[in-house]
Amino acid sequence: MGIKPINIAQKFDKFSDVWSPKIVSELNGQFVKLARLKGEFVRHQHIDEDELFFVIEGVLEIEFDTNTITLNPGEMVVIPKGVYHKPIAEQEVKVMLFEPKSTINTGDINSDLTKDQLDRL
Amino acid sequence: MGIKPINIAQKFDKFSDVWSPKIVSELNGQFVKLARLKGEFVRHQHIDEDELFFVIEGVLEIEFDTNTITLNPGEMVVIPKGVYHKPIAEQEVKVMLFEPKSTINTGDINSDLTKDQLDRL
Repeated sequence: MGIKPINIAQKFDKFSDVWSPKIVSELNGQFVKLARLKGEFVRHQHIDEDELFFVIEGVLEIEFDTNTITLNPGEMVVIPKGVYHKPIAEQEVKVMLFEPKSTINTGDINSDLTKDQLDRL
Repeated sequence: MGIKPINIAQKFDKFSDVWSPKIVSELNGQFVKLARLKGEFVRHQHIDEDELFFVIEGVLEIEFDTNTITLNPGEMVVIPKGVYHKPIAEQEVKVMLFEPKSTINTGDINSDLTKDQLDRL
């Protein structure tokens, strides 16, 4: 059958670089990705794609233009398309991302942080 | 702004019925759902939709026609469309589901367990 469970913790053990999402699964045109975040990311939006952040470990702040939210482990947020956001991780954070295959991490911004070729775990 | 974190544990505290997925968020034509599972579900397939199970608490078995997998907390699986599967939870399990808005819990099977009107938490 080949349908295997995916152990999230074990997948995180396979990489250590930050701001570099890895693909762990896909379904219905969407990717499930894991990423380690540390420091301040670039403010950006995704013009056509909503984006889900689910925090596995650590505390993630997401700055919007008018407010900031804090996500603890076991908390998630969906950022609608067209909403500028800036993830900030004072300490390292492990997140699961759920978004369309077309989504680029820095959205409409070209940056040294842009990753357009993602590894699969 | 109105973009708020969703605390998964708090959402689970809002319901106790089993085999009755609740919608907690949506993005890109997909729903994020939470469900409590206990006992044996009906074997079914989703003809056009892949389905993601992510176990938050408990141990979930999923029977396929040729093998069975076991999912522990922190483990997920994607069941491709067209694959018959039967979830079994010996003890109560909390799962997060990710699937297209069109997905019905019992797929191609009409059953007393079929839920075609889902509550939102």
